Amino acid sequence: MKTRKAGIIGGAGYTGGEAIRLLLNHPDVELAFVHSRSNAGNPLHAVHGDLLGETDLLFSGEIDNTVDVMFLCLGHGESKKFLEQNDIAASVKVVDLSQDFRLGETVKDRTFVYGLPEANRDAIKEASNIANPGCFATAIQLGLLPLAKAGLLGEVHTTGITGSTGAGQSLQATSHFTWRANNISTYKVLQHQHLKEIRRTLQAIQPAFGGGIHFVPVRGDYPRGIWITSYLDCKLSLDEAYALYEAYYEGHPFTHVSRKQIDLKQVVNTNKVLVQLEKQGDKLVIHSIEDNLIKGASGQAVQNMNLMLGLDETAGLKLKSIVF
Amino acid sequence: MKTRKAGIIGGAGYTGGEAIRLLLNHPDVELAFVHSRSNAGNPLHAVHGDLLGETDLLFSGEIDNTVDVMFLCLGHGESKKFLEQNDIAASVKVVDLSQDFRLGETVKDRTFVYGLPEANRDAIKEASNIANPGCFATAIQLGLLPLAKAGLLGEVHTTGITGSTGAGQSLQATSHFTWRANNISTYKVLQHQHLKEIRRTLQAIQPAFGGGIHFVPVRGDYPRGIWITSYLDCKLSLDEAYALYEAYYEGHPFTHVSRKQIDLKQVVNTNKVLVQLEKQGDKLVIHSIEDNLIKGASGQAVQNMNLMLGLDETAGLKLKSIVF
Amino acid sequence: MKTRKAGIIGGAGYTGGEAIRLLLNHPDVELAFVHSRSNAGNPLHAVHGDLLGETDLLFSGEIDNTVDVMFLCLGHGESKKFLEQNDIAASVKVVDLSQDFRLGETVKDRTFVYGLPEANRDAIKEASNIANPGCFATAIQLGLLPLAKAGLLGEVHTTGITGSTGAGQSLQATSHFTWRANNISTYKVLQHQHLKEIRRTLQAIQPAFGGGIHFVPVRGDYPRGIWITSYLDCKLSLDEAYALYEAYYEGHPFTHVSRKQIDLKQVVNTNKVLVQLEKQGDKLVIHSIEDNLIKGASGQAVQNMNLMLGLDETAGLKLKSIVF
Amino acid sequence: MKTRKAGIIGGAGYTGGEAIRLLLNHPDVELAFVHSRSNAGNPLHAVHGDLLGETDLLFSGEIDNTVDVMFLCLGHGESKKFLEQNDIAASVKVVDLSQDFRLGETVKDRTFVYGLPEANRDAIKEASNIANPGCFATAIQLGLLPLAKAGLLGEVHTTGITGSTGAGQSLQATSHFTWRANNISTYKVLQHQHLKEIRRTLQAIQPAFGGGIHFVPVRGDYPRGIWITSYLDCKLSLDEAYALYEAYYEGHPFTHVSRKQIDLKQVVNTNKVLVQLEKQGDKLVIHSIEDNLIKGASGQAVQNMNLMLGLDETAGLKLKSIVF
Repeated sequence: MKTRKAGIIGGAGYTGGEAIRLLLNHPDVELAFVHSRSNAGNPLHAVHGDLLGETDLLFSGEIDNTVDVMFLCLGHGESKKFLEQNDIAASVKVVDLSQDFRLGETVKDRTFVYGLPEANRDAIKEASNIANPGCFATAIQLGLLPLAKAGLLGEVHTTGITGSTGAGQSLQATSHFTWRANNISTYKVLQHQHLKEIRRTLQAIQPAFGGGIHFVPVRGDYPRGIWITSYLDCKLSLDEAYALYEAYYEGHPFTHVSRKQIDLKQVVNTNKVLVQLEKQGDKLVIHSIEDNLIKGASGQAVQNMNLMLGLDETAGLKLKSIVF
Repeated sequence: MKTRKAGIIGGAGYTGGEAIRLLLNHPDVELAFVHSRSNAGNPLHAVHGDLLGETDLLFSGEIDNTVDVMFLCLGHGESKKFLEQNDIAASVKVVDLSQDFRLGETVKDRTFVYGLPEANRDAIKEASNIANPGCFATAIQLGLLPLAKAGLLGEVHTTGITGSTGAGQSLQATSHFTWRANNISTYKVLQHQHLKEIRRTLQAIQPAFGGGIHFVPVRGDYPRGIWITSYLDCKLSLDEAYALYEAYYEGHPFTHVSRKQIDLKQVVNTNKVLVQLEKQGDKLVIHSIEDNLIKGASGQAVQNMNLMLGLDETAGLKLKSIVF
Repeated sequence: MKTRKAGIIGGAGYTGGEAIRLLLNHPDVELAFVHSRSNAGNPLHAVHGDLLGETDLLFSGEIDNTVDVMFLCLGHGESKKFLEQNDIAASVKVVDLSQDFRLGETVKDRTFVYGLPEANRDAIKEASNIANPGCFATAIQLGLLPLAKAGLLGEVHTTGITGSTGAGQSLQATSHFTWRANNISTYKVLQHQHLKEIRRTLQAIQPAFGGGIHFVPVRGDYPRGIWITSYLDCKLSLDEAYALYEAYYEGHPFTHVSRKQIDLKQVVNTNKVLVQLEKQGDKLVIHSIEDNLIKGASGQAVQNMNLMLGLDETAGLKLKSIVF
Repeated sequence: MKTRKAGIIGGAGYTGGEAIRLLLNHPDVELAFVHSRSNAGNPLHAVHGDLLGETDLLFSGEIDNTVDVMFLCLGHGESKKFLEQNDIAASVKVVDLSQDFRLGETVKDRTFVYGLPEANRDAIKEASNIANPGCFATAIQLGLLPLAKAGLLGEVHTTGITGSTGAGQSLQATSHFTWRANNISTYKVLQHQHLKEIRRTLQAIQPAFGGGIHFVPVRGDYPRGIWITSYLDCKLSLDEAYALYEAYYEGHPFTHVSRKQIDLKQVVNTNKVLVQLEKQGDKLVIHSIEDNLIKGASGQAVQNMNLMLGLDETAGLKLKSIVF
């Protein structure tokens, strides 16, 4: 019996599509409407072809203020505008997937909790508005949270590789198949915008952390998934480090510590994060992986909704991995 | 509440792994054991790394005869041997994923129903033993069944492209990444073994069908999914053909007719088949697509189990597509 | 010593780029200019990044009528316009890579020879204007020419799979990496425009050939290369068929008959075509493969230039395959 | 006129195959023999299918001591054994592609010069034996040499991504297409064996360099090419750094400095290296890219041969990039 209702604002993009897919199969929440100005009146499957046979729902040009929660799947800068320009009932909880509110920004009377359950679960449960973390930010933070809590974070060196879905569905030179297939390139080296929200979280936990995270983002040659390798000076032995991480993630349903070598496809098409450690000399190496569109976006958004609505945190998120 | 129990024989391969993934999330059926001689005692996630955090179940060297159903995920020829050499209780229903029983073969007292629900649903519901169809066979037949029922099948020309998972997990020259990436090749041209089961089904429906199916199987440059394009002489207009197909698949929960151009990723990681038609001159063109490991193997096996056990046909099979 | 000069009209696209790459390394021909309206004044490597370090040549807004040959690397319809609107000296030979002149069309006093050396070498040597064949057309014809010459062509069924470069560099939904990676789709099924030039060639050789070629074009999941599998009724044994093909292609430097199974990457980044045969029952199966941008476009254009200018047919075309 | 002769020992693997491809088209050097114990008597194209139509040469079980140079394309440890166990004439120059002699090791009377022309050209010209650098080692060093020469090297952080050909042609779990497609993983993090030869070169140039290179090697999802991003503290402005690099690589025919963003496919299937710089705060970022089998192996081996034999350094190495 579905007892709650959700709406999606901006349902034609990648994160909107993933939110639709997750909510259609959610046991407790009904997908009440999917708003899209440009597609109003068209069936969802006209835009998201894989939904053919799944639903006959149409995109709506109207916003229904009776839902329990709205997901804002809009471009950066668009969420703030949307909330300013539309009357969204105070009773409606908001999960915003843009970066508009991740650094403490507010709009009207809405203040936002940063929606990383592994750091902020209790605050999320009490929240009315969630700023859903960035995709790189999620995977990097989940690799570093246990160290921050133990006060062990120092200067960090991070490599991150992302699938093409991270760049959205707009057509651009770097998203052309002919160009991107079998290709590698980097962007925003040492200056990625997610570093701000990462530092904000980590410094809240370990105030003495200087914030030095040197991050090399790489465009990978595949559609889905983020691979992160971070390393830093650390005096813990490998066993001590594993013990620290396993204790931290005990009871967190989506983040798991692996004592075996991991590879990205263990988590693609799921809401999971896997973390693996290595020790080389004085350096602790932390690998962390996720699906950028699920735990890195729409799946974490549903996880946050579950927490805000008092539902089972994993409801609707037991997903079959693609694995191969 | 899980009221039924299932076991898997041969859980270390691709189809065994997919059967595990589907049954772990099945609402009505408990995965009681996964049998593997070589892996007995190891956790499932030691072989299937994506299951880390999903289950602590171990591979078993024992067979539990109290289950309701067993899935045989063994190599061709191995299923027959297994049933000959082991005492499987008569009360245990069997779904065999090999090709050992697809052409009417029997073993001990077990006779097998061909498990293509879109052709044989009523017989499947009454069956105790299912011969699960081949992957190419499923997609090709679902493109042709409505024509056979209307007595319109003539000589058919078929192209089929399969992902690398169709070849299993053994290491061989044609499964080496360096070789297969960006490559195309064919195999068993005009002589694929699935043609036998296809002809058997179609001739049972349209006895006058001569059985001419000229099939070019292609090794594709991707892991999952089968694309089929068939064409044949047909006097129906495009609208008449669509009407025929839509009427046939009305009420079948996993096979849908698309009036828009389809592409393979609409169905990857789901149990769905999409069928699209075109008419060029006197030729009717039928495109049909599936995930070779799900509707083409383990998903259809679960669908058959659901039917045999009197469960909702779609239980455990509402899967999120990979789509991107 | 480079004794001849060539110019390229439309050097910013894929076929223009490949023509540049081939001519820069040509032993006998100097690349005199590369014309591009939109890029005039920019270095070639500003558009074709791989040319950095190869040449400092700039795109030109001027046309130099003193060259021996011009390559027209323009969109379909644009070549005819270009020759109508510009004064190209009668002394300049033209190789047109569009489809504007493949069916006997003329412009001003220019008549065009269809530039398939394996069919028309002598005519090409005497020609002043070449209509360079289409990419699919080249591979399909090279699979059928020996049969046509022997008068053995009947109704043909053909599957063709092409890399994404076949669709050019414009950004479109079907060229988005996220969409095309791991995906398969078809287009222009049984109605591809190349069928006209294929029938024209084959009927000139075997006038009784009815022209029935049923062609299923497939969008492949890789950038470069075309795979063709054709089959037809044929009374020749496999050995007789191989003997026919080997005799036909004796002395043709770029088309070779393989008695072993072939795969696409044997020819990618070369001007070669490989042909392999199989016999199943009454059917002869012919596989033929090429690089769509080289033998299927710019490489064949250079081959035609070599023939027209009396140079070694293979000059500048001894290319290292990518192979892996 | 080919005036010199070369032989290849171990011609069945990836680097042996690339050496064959390069030497077949070399203007001055004849490929006299390709030795392979397991393939003796078979045509080269039986192993390297792309060579069909290029050569009828057979693998040889004999070694011809009259050649000018031998390329050892053997596994690590095998080169030393080969030279110990076989009588190779003192007049035969050796280019060894393994890591057996990169750190100053000797065998019989042979001492080896490290074959990185951008660092050691003069010594290479005088050498009789070359230890050809490792693939990662080449790309990393070419990104750092100008800094070492200027005495500016400090602690370096490096990410490196390699195609699957870097792992050779043996079948293993991590080279299975189904596993590696769309996947990312790391190996030998902070402990890659190439670090030794890198430090050796750099410390010879800048003795005060402490040798700190923290290297994260990544398995990429494509067959060919290495991407390197290194960064370190550096007081040079971006312009000063570019000036330093451009001055260093002036006159080096295969290494070029790009002031525009680079991407891997600019160099795939060529002997080129491109280097691009960025400055972020106090950090200098250096991207360097190569084809791991050409500049990272067989192409550099031919370049070294050219230098040793007094030929044009670029002879046989003007290669068409794959680019798409």
